[in-house]
Amino acid sequence: MTRRALADGILFTDQYQLTMSQIYFRMGLHEKEAQFEHYFRRYPDYGSHQAGFCIAAGMDSLLDWMDSAHVTDADIEALRSQVDGTGSRIFDEDFLSWLRSNGSFDCLSIRSMPEGRIVHANAPFTIVTGPLAMAQILETSLLNHLNFETLIATKAARVSQASRGRPVLEFGLRRSAGRGANAAARGALVGGATASSNVGMSHVMGVQPKGTHAHSMVQVFMSLGEGELGAFRAYADVYPDDCLLLVDTIDTLASGIPNAITVFDELSAKGHEPVGIRLDSGDLAYLAIQAAAQLNEAGYPDTTIVLSSSLDELVIFQILSQIDQEAPRYGIDPVRLIGRMVMGVGSKLATSAGQPYLDGVYKLMALRDSGSDSWNPAIKVSETPAKTPNPGDKDVVRIYDERGRSTADVMVEKGQSLDDGDVVELRHPIQPHSRRTLLRSEISEVEPLLVDVTVGGKRVDGSPGLAEISQRRVRDIDRLDPGVRRLVNPHRYHVSLTPGLWDLKQQLVAKAKASIT
Amino acid sequence: MTRRALADGILFTDQYQLTMSQIYFRMGLHEKEAQFEHYFRRYPDYGSHQAGFCIAAGMDSLLDWMDSAHVTDADIEALRSQVDGTGSRIFDEDFLSWLRSNGSFDCLSIRSMPEGRIVHANAPFTIVTGPLAMAQILETSLLNHLNFETLIATKAARVSQASRGRPVLEFGLRRSAGRGANAAARGALVGGATASSNVGMSHVMGVQPKGTHAHSMVQVFMSLGEGELGAFRAYADVYPDDCLLLVDTIDTLASGIPNAITVFDELSAKGHEPVGIRLDSGDLAYLAIQAAAQLNEAGYPDTTIVLSSSLDELVIFQILSQIDQEAPRYGIDPVRLIGRMVMGVGSKLATSAGQPYLDGVYKLMALRDSGSDSWNPAIKVSETPAKTPNPGDKDVVRIYDERGRSTADVMVEKGQSLDDGDVVELRHPIQPHSRRTLLRSEISEVEPLLVDVTVGGKRVDGSPGLAEISQRRVRDIDRLDPGVRRLVNPHRYHVSLTPGLWDLKQQLVAKAKASIT
Repeated sequence: MTRRALADGILFTDQYQLTMSQIYFRMGLHEKEAQFEHYFRRYPDYGSHQAGFCIAAGMDSLLDWMDSAHVTDADIEALRSQVDGTGSRIFDEDFLSWLRSNGSFDCLSIRSMPEGRIVHANAPFTIVTGPLAMAQILETSLLNHLNFETLIATKAARVSQASRGRPVLEFGLRRSAGRGANAAARGALVGGATASSNVGMSHVMGVQPKGTHAHSMVQVFMSLGEGELGAFRAYADVYPDDCLLLVDTIDTLASGIPNAITVFDELSAKGHEPVGIRLDSGDLAYLAIQAAAQLNEAGYPDTTIVLSSSLDELVIFQILSQIDQEAPRYGIDPVRLIGRMVMGVGSKLATSAGQPYLDGVYKLMALRDSGSDSWNPAIKVSETPAKTPNPGDKDVVRIYDERGRSTADVMVEKGQSLDDGDVVELRHPIQPHSRRTLLRSEISEVEPLLVDVTVGGKRVDGSPGLAEISQRRVRDIDRLDPGVRRLVNPHRYHVSLTPGLWDLKQQLVAKAKASIT
Repeated sequence: MTRRALADGILFTDQYQLTMSQIYFRMGLHEKEAQFEHYFRRYPDYGSHQAGFCIAAGMDSLLDWMDSAHVTDADIEALRSQVDGTGSRIFDEDFLSWLRSNGSFDCLSIRSMPEGRIVHANAPFTIVTGPLAMAQILETSLLNHLNFETLIATKAARVSQASRGRPVLEFGLRRSAGRGANAAARGALVGGATASSNVGMSHVMGVQPKGTHAHSMVQVFMSLGEGELGAFRAYADVYPDDCLLLVDTIDTLASGIPNAITVFDELSAKGHEPVGIRLDSGDLAYLAIQAAAQLNEAGYPDTTIVLSSSLDELVIFQILSQIDQEAPRYGIDPVRLIGRMVMGVGSKLATSAGQPYLDGVYKLMALRDSGSDSWNPAIKVSETPAKTPNPGDKDVVRIYDERGRSTADVMVEKGQSLDDGDVVELRHPIQPHSRRTLLRSEISEVEPLLVDVTVGGKRVDGSPGLAEISQRRVRDIDRLDPGVRRLVNPHRYHVSLTPGLWDLKQQLVAKAKASIT
């Protein structure tokens, strides 16, 4: 692993962050104070279904990385070896020497949406302030950590919603993106998965990992002539109080469930309570109903039925809808059946299938001389208007309506809030004629969203644990309009600018365009 | 990072591998010799386009992990803390003590498709032999490493093919799955990307990382009143022999390219050769043609034009087709234009957008007592016939036709090859009536595919480097039928069984079904 260590430290970044930093160094700009803003432009669109909100995640992982990513001699040696097309070195000794002494992120301050909270497209998610070169080098890793965990937390929140609050187990390690499986497990737990099969990451997160057995264990016993029943008995013998059996190695209804019931009877006779079964192939809606019928008949009306096999939020939504419709025909109460179900969700959760990346960006918003009070806003003009950032030194507030539902996230000038008047005017960030006015009386709360995470490199947000993060998520989802929560074709949540920030943006764009000669 | 170390070692596995291993331990089966086979069932299907082959990748990463993943005291402490629903411990001391002493992968032997070679759906990709418990625990991480790098290598091979052999740069770090970005960079390089922006992983792979500058650098100079031209001059000043400028911060054709030409003229006057420009937004086909026109006119007919912005194989295929059609209308030779182009491919390569996971599986194929000569084949019967594995102790050979093109991968009994007769009969692995006969005279070569990678935990394949891996890939793709190589709706490559293995499979399935009482 030694030679691979290079890939996990400060060189876990894009080459151009370093080439730009050397330019800043050469021009004496490297310690100028910069403000970068991170946000994403589009909610995940899975093709047949779309997200109307995201769940912020990844900050704790980013901070862990930042703590560990100090420049080492091996890093410098690697950079020293880089040459351009003519064989000349890319990085000069004076820059490398500066980097060796200053290459840490302790100089940066970060404000961000707390993990677990709902975050919206185009609203500031994270703001990084500090010396230009190090704030620039941070870009790639910040985006990597926050984009991916937010993507997975969002998917997990959707899967949990489709599952009607039943437990969701994250199973995706084997098909995730290499070591990104750990970020996937963390993101899933932040977004609402109840547990993960990933042993190591579960321990890191302080959650009991979950898992029972695979087909291979049944095959071992079959190959030894002891059959499925022998395998189930061995399982029950070792885990009498945690006996959850995978019933589809041979034939779910003809072999798996009858054998499971035999073993459950043997366990019950010894005073143990059987946990349940797992269905991993076939028509899961039909099999769940039939499994419930067999288990009920045998006197196990409450044992768990775990479903797995290519599940995602839409598949789960469909299975549960079908159970609602079909179960009564077999004399099964659908509410009671769904109430004993657990969802095992693997590949499609851990990779956010349909939309495997979030398009988060990190844009320079303002610059100032170190020690100066006032920021000089920066702009980038894109031929695609949606790609033109909203410049300036900003905060973001969430407006709740008279029902207590969130109705808009509004970018405001730093340290300010909304206008005090009876009417609050909101501007669409792109469309000049799209305005919205809210009466002050329609507003029940105006909540500042960004919190200080690190100040001068020191963590100040108290490193919240999973329980606190989950509370935030539950509370935010509760306060979201059901239209925005909808799994398919959700209503568009408003993200707006104050009139002052809108005017600033127009002025800067006009100035940049005027510079074209 | 200390608390996170747990997540990268041997506990980078699914919980059920450990619960099953404890059962094997309790039943005295843990050191029985097992043979597991890894293969994937379906080629990646990106929705609008599909892969007809995959490029094997990930073994070197897996072996690195296996080397480092010895059970530690911290691992044991974590497992000791696990409890079931009644509060009883999941793992007993005797099992943990065995695991502490024996929990390494040095006991396993691995045969596999060499990295860089073409591998097909349902053909054996990797075969692991060794004590049951450790071979079982390896499953999750083996699948994680091989599934993902193979997925990305496959995507990279397709992107490279669509790019007509022009250089492909992997840019996806910021939007990849956490630390999986490193596996993505490695997979991309194995699959045919020329270089990566990922600094650390490039150094691990012995490749120069690539990258120039982002919009933020131009914004910094604009914010200081020096404009895009000032930014370009600063870049050229620091990297006179590596000057590749991003030209779309304000307006590509009206500002970016004219400013780039000004700087190129200044560089040329000083005796340096400008490298080129990068286009990152807008209509890339149109802009590439217009950029070429402006650069040609200014006396730069050969400078590179890098394209980036949500590229994948289909987008590149379309852009190049359009350039073929449209460039002549503007007096531009399309062959010469494409010949100066480079593709920067990010998110969609690093996440294999459209199909973000490969469905590789790891199935028990045979068991035997340690020291015994003959394997006892194992079976799993699925209600989906495609999910029933092909049992037994096997090898796989590739048949080349009289043109020297590969025409089928055939599973044969271990140590055997095809029948010696004039006619070779091949059986479809699932469909009983689908047979194919080849005349011996139509066969130019029968090539055994699996090679020994580790024997008793010792690496024996000489740790091939990227150059050797690339040669294998180029050679295999050359020998593939163009129909199978097609980007959209490729022809289906044949993966077959010998009649002997087909009969074995039928017998085992019948026996398993007969066991249902």
